[in-house]
Amino acid sequence: MISGSKVRRIGVLTGGGDCPGLNAVIRAVVKTAINSHRLSVVGFENGFGGLIQNRARELTVNDVVGILPRGGTILGTTNRDNPFKYQMVIKGEQVFRDVSDRVVENINIHGIDALIIIGGDGSLSIGKELYEEKGLPVVGVPKTIDNDLSATDQTFGFDTALNTATEAIDKLHTTAESHHRVMVLEVMGRYAGWIALQSGIAGGADAILIPEIPYSIEKVYEKIYSRRDVGKMFSIVVVAEGAKPLGGEMTVLRRVEESFDPIRLGGIGNIVARQIEDETGMESRSIVLGHLQRGGMPTAFDRILATRYGAGAVNLVMEGRFGEMVCLRTPNIESVPLAEAVGEIRMVPIDNDMVHAARHVGICLGN
Amino acid sequence: MISGSKVRRIGVLTGGGDCPGLNAVIRAVVKTAINSHRLSVVGFENGFGGLIQNRARELTVNDVVGILPRGGTILGTTNRDNPFKYQMVIKGEQVFRDVSDRVVENINIHGIDALIIIGGDGSLSIGKELYEEKGLPVVGVPKTIDNDLSATDQTFGFDTALNTATEAIDKLHTTAESHHRVMVLEVMGRYAGWIALQSGIAGGADAILIPEIPYSIEKVYEKIYSRRDVGKMFSIVVVAEGAKPLGGEMTVLRRVEESFDPIRLGGIGNIVARQIEDETGMESRSIVLGHLQRGGMPTAFDRILATRYGAGAVNLVMEGRFGEMVCLRTPNIESVPLAEAVGEIRMVPIDNDMVHAARHVGICLGN
Amino acid sequence: MISGSKVRRIGVLTGGGDCPGLNAVIRAVVKTAINSHRLSVVGFENGFGGLIQNRARELTVNDVVGILPRGGTILGTTNRDNPFKYQMVIKGEQVFRDVSDRVVENINIHGIDALIIIGGDGSLSIGKELYEEKGLPVVGVPKTIDNDLSATDQTFGFDTALNTATEAIDKLHTTAESHHRVMVLEVMGRYAGWIALQSGIAGGADAILIPEIPYSIEKVYEKIYSRRDVGKMFSIVVVAEGAKPLGGEMTVLRRVEESFDPIRLGGIGNIVARQIEDETGMESRSIVLGHLQRGGMPTAFDRILATRYGAGAVNLVMEGRFGEMVCLRTPNIESVPLAEAVGEIRMVPIDNDMVHAARHVGICLGN
Amino acid sequence: MISGSKVRRIGVLTGGGDCPGLNAVIRAVVKTAINSHRLSVVGFENGFGGLIQNRARELTVNDVVGILPRGGTILGTTNRDNPFKYQMVIKGEQVFRDVSDRVVENINIHGIDALIIIGGDGSLSIGKELYEEKGLPVVGVPKTIDNDLSATDQTFGFDTALNTATEAIDKLHTTAESHHRVMVLEVMGRYAGWIALQSGIAGGADAILIPEIPYSIEKVYEKIYSRRDVGKMFSIVVVAEGAKPLGGEMTVLRRVEESFDPIRLGGIGNIVARQIEDETGMESRSIVLGHLQRGGMPTAFDRILATRYGAGAVNLVMEGRFGEMVCLRTPNIESVPLAEAVGEIRMVPIDNDMVHAARHVGICLGN
Repeated sequence: MISGSKVRRIGVLTGGGDCPGLNAVIRAVVKTAINSHRLSVVGFENGFGGLIQNRARELTVNDVVGILPRGGTILGTTNRDNPFKYQMVIKGEQVFRDVSDRVVENINIHGIDALIIIGGDGSLSIGKELYEEKGLPVVGVPKTIDNDLSATDQTFGFDTALNTATEAIDKLHTTAESHHRVMVLEVMGRYAGWIALQSGIAGGADAILIPEIPYSIEKVYEKIYSRRDVGKMFSIVVVAEGAKPLGGEMTVLRRVEESFDPIRLGGIGNIVARQIEDETGMESRSIVLGHLQRGGMPTAFDRILATRYGAGAVNLVMEGRFGEMVCLRTPNIESVPLAEAVGEIRMVPIDNDMVHAARHVGICLGN
Repeated sequence: MISGSKVRRIGVLTGGGDCPGLNAVIRAVVKTAINSHRLSVVGFENGFGGLIQNRARELTVNDVVGILPRGGTILGTTNRDNPFKYQMVIKGEQVFRDVSDRVVENINIHGIDALIIIGGDGSLSIGKELYEEKGLPVVGVPKTIDNDLSATDQTFGFDTALNTATEAIDKLHTTAESHHRVMVLEVMGRYAGWIALQSGIAGGADAILIPEIPYSIEKVYEKIYSRRDVGKMFSIVVVAEGAKPLGGEMTVLRRVEESFDPIRLGGIGNIVARQIEDETGMESRSIVLGHLQRGGMPTAFDRILATRYGAGAVNLVMEGRFGEMVCLRTPNIESVPLAEAVGEIRMVPIDNDMVHAARHVGICLGN
Repeated sequence: MISGSKVRRIGVLTGGGDCPGLNAVIRAVVKTAINSHRLSVVGFENGFGGLIQNRARELTVNDVVGILPRGGTILGTTNRDNPFKYQMVIKGEQVFRDVSDRVVENINIHGIDALIIIGGDGSLSIGKELYEEKGLPVVGVPKTIDNDLSATDQTFGFDTALNTATEAIDKLHTTAESHHRVMVLEVMGRYAGWIALQSGIAGGADAILIPEIPYSIEKVYEKIYSRRDVGKMFSIVVVAEGAKPLGGEMTVLRRVEESFDPIRLGGIGNIVARQIEDETGMESRSIVLGHLQRGGMPTAFDRILATRYGAGAVNLVMEGRFGEMVCLRTPNIESVPLAEAVGEIRMVPIDNDMVHAARHVGICLGN
Repeated sequence: MISGSKVRRIGVLTGGGDCPGLNAVIRAVVKTAINSHRLSVVGFENGFGGLIQNRARELTVNDVVGILPRGGTILGTTNRDNPFKYQMVIKGEQVFRDVSDRVVENINIHGIDALIIIGGDGSLSIGKELYEEKGLPVVGVPKTIDNDLSATDQTFGFDTALNTATEAIDKLHTTAESHHRVMVLEVMGRYAGWIALQSGIAGGADAILIPEIPYSIEKVYEKIYSRRDVGKMFSIVVVAEGAKPLGGEMTVLRRVEESFDPIRLGGIGNIVARQIEDETGMESRSIVLGHLQRGGMPTAFDRILATRYGAGAVNLVMEGRFGEMVCLRTPNIESVPLAEAVGEIRMVPIDNDMVHAARHVGICLGN
């Protein structure tokens, strides 16, 4: 492994799901590397796929002109293609192979002295493995829509997704009120409920269901009834896709649906909407926000954080601090070993002040 | 029937689905009536329901302060409650009854000299019947998200829905491109494809499927393949909810799905996405924009049109032109008999210049 | 002059001030020309300057990828450089020369069979002269922020500027109300008050001053006082940059300012704000929206209109209808001779229904 | 002074300049006080003015319905009216008097057990004095657009202002590029450059001038020239209103302007624009964003932070922790004595990583 002072050429890739701010990180990496340190930069295409198949291109300052405010990634990305478990078809059969040696080879072919991996828990775990097992000089940049990485105060992309979800709630609000309806918005968050909790608070939701707090649907009914009792004939419910009912509660729905079929019922948002309509008799509608949360122009915060991360990652490279990841320790950008950064999801602490504030303004959290 | 010059008191109601700009119309009606003509105004709650059940309240200028930029309607609205076919439960049985006499009675109770009905084809048809059958002094204001009323250049609400759909396409664009995916966005438009066509053009879609042009899914495949051939590994498809395949074509999907079940498959957007993924092998995702198109702050255009309609409706009242509806004949607000305005849907003319422009910029329209 | 059927190669330029949608027109021109008609396209840089100095480049479909939603123009633009009065320095002296022969020469050098000029009244007037005096095969596309071209229902760019101004009023509203202030927003509109009138209606302004209606500042005071009388301690005034007081009225201010100095006083918005503060004693602030109205992503409407104009302009070329300009005759794109289209500004008709609606909702128009 | 456990009734006021999120704090205070602690709430109107003149009203949960997403403050606010230096006219003369005893009296008249002051450095300093000198049970909530309070990671309102400024830069970008112009945007920040620095990074500015770094205009010229050398014929400069040139440098401008007159020249943004145009010969324009930064709907972040602050302030009250202020110590809401929170402005540390990141992406900071 080389020290940072000898770095002449770096590689960069974006892995995992799309996230607003990826382009802003790439831009900052390229500008910092070339302008401040006279390095050259190679971009690998489509995440680890490009690293394995050696699809790469030189990145110059001209390549990153104008991409700061744009969503997506000029390098492409994918959720697949783990070099340690690479899916191949051999003799007509699907098999998984360790092709990490190809990665090492390609790094050498391009004469790359350091590799910056921009990704979420999955991509950074691969980065850690490449660093630990293969000795590659890896530096990480944390990215998730869900804001559920434990080693940083915030990931870029989250603030944009949060504002997108909040705007959606704002839009549903007037329709719910005019039509006396219950509107159920399903947002991202398979394991952690940050988007649901925060957009629900920001949008003035009446109930928020998150994975961290198994919900009793009865509590949601109570909330809706208590609003109806004071003349509020509508409610807004925000549901994280990973929200789970307390054990056994799905039976409430099973009574309604003779044959329970989750695929037919759609996601959790749809289930909740149907339960509410069955119970309360109020018209209920569910909306799945889905990929709209991954796209669009990044907010100012995400552009700034992404820029700081990109510049910070190159600085880690120059200091030879491989196997580390940039992170936000407000108000500073610091770093943390990849080994500490991955594998643990940052859940919503159920007694933090944000949760308390939600309850104080009257939001039902399902318990 | 009284002439406009003797009008002292008017009623107003909002019927049908939610639509950005309803509040702006109500505000203009109230301000014009009270400030310019010294009338008083009664608002009926929840569309025709309030007119039947006599749920009404006085509206003053103070009641409409600050509502201009807000979505929804302070009067509430509903899709149900036709006074000529009013759903009731009598002796445990659901029956439909003509209760239009109650409407006449309530109009008299409130001493109302004219009734302004803000609604879509359904509400305006009831308005026409109340005018023709019951002699009520009705004036209409055209409202649809779908812009499919034949007697006016544009309905308020459409411009806002169009911008919401276009922003959604903008967001999906970067993700589709970064992930090499096909994104299918299903937008409103059961009978007319205005939102799909216009948002598709504005968002730079690759294919747009509308009810007016039965589509061949093969044409969509061809478009996606032709893009792939020149290195564009993603596509955006916009589908109106009422889009229909050419006869028999669903068999393509049936081969895939042993038991064809439209409920299980979700809406047309989902079906199209699955067909594309099956055929092309490219990852495809569908998003249903749904109620997000009905909410939110109205655009400048919709606020202005709504204000002009509201003022224009009161002017029709003052001129005693009952049984008419305000309409936009660019650049002027004019009027048209309700009898001409309802019952006929304004479809996208398949040879108009907007359709041609879509083809010229390379958009596949499914045929 | 050649007929459209022999057209093989077209030129395009953007002239005058920046305007959202220019890129959308260029994109539609290039795609329609190349995809639908197998033409080739040359883009001249920086308006007529590029045509005079022969700064041009080939435009392919790849050059217009992704520019649909972007403000500005990839060709550059300028307000200067009239080929009939071209500013040059000869022997140290600034002189104006007719260099229109150079334009003809450059058109020939590039083998261009038709020239599409996207611009406002100034650029289209030059286009008309090139067509009439030099016989160049010119086709025009109307562009102004101000929407003041007489030959078309609407120019692209206006809808975006209108929404930008309306959002600004929305923002000022809450501050005005919280602080009990008068906020004066100066918007574009040197000769015609469309932006001021429409954004004022959409934003719920209390007074709107436009060039078409010379204002009495006393009327504005009256409006502010009448609001104060009913407890509304704030007001919003929208002023077009070309608004003019009734003769002699500036004396009101002159009494305050011993030495009247318009430069020192800033624009008309600032003058009005100072007059109001002097008269009423209420804190007043002025904001000049300026260039913010020219930038940003075009709205859905402007993207669609720009796309239709671009496709329509190429169609005019193919039909050999030179000396004409595309225009919107709602709901169709049609055309009109350039000779009819330029030289006459479309003012706000002071008795149209939009003006009446403004008065009906209680807006003071200064008279 | 009473302990928190005996609190039955609280007062609340908003002081200082307008700021997005004030309503969200008021809403959270009212809901938390009434729903969670069965308190009653009195709102004082127009900051300390209402407290001095006893203009107050009861606040119920109904009063705060729907205000979460709205800018401004339902209580009104003002920058004036310090009870310790209250401006009065006595015998025709303007004098300042200490009327703080009236404040104590009014607090007693309303039976208020705790007073929540939402304000910036000025209002919180008065709050500290009321607590220390008069023994009033004060709790503070930090608010500034400028984010320059030292005792909290962030104030609410800043994120919204930052996004407003960033959107403005986005809009100016395309026009600057299309017109080959230098655009100078003047943003808020009299003492601290947070808005300028962060919006400049987020918007991709070429130069950013902040109060913390006295600038050499020559450095700005160099940046513009170096861009011109590589064909970039435009630049964006963001200037905080408090930016200051290095000593003596104004002479550069004085050479141009025979009689230097800052009022005539307008704000610092205008001065910088004129210097650049004089030096480089490139057309330069300045825009003053002004009050647009104080208005509008708060972002999701600001709504959430405001809600947490409001709930947290009531919690401080219930714990009897008077003389303290809620603050954000990411990720938690904590508290700090008012005595520590006021009087010291949080400047941009000139060697923090955000400043370094700005330089790394090539931004000129004027030194």
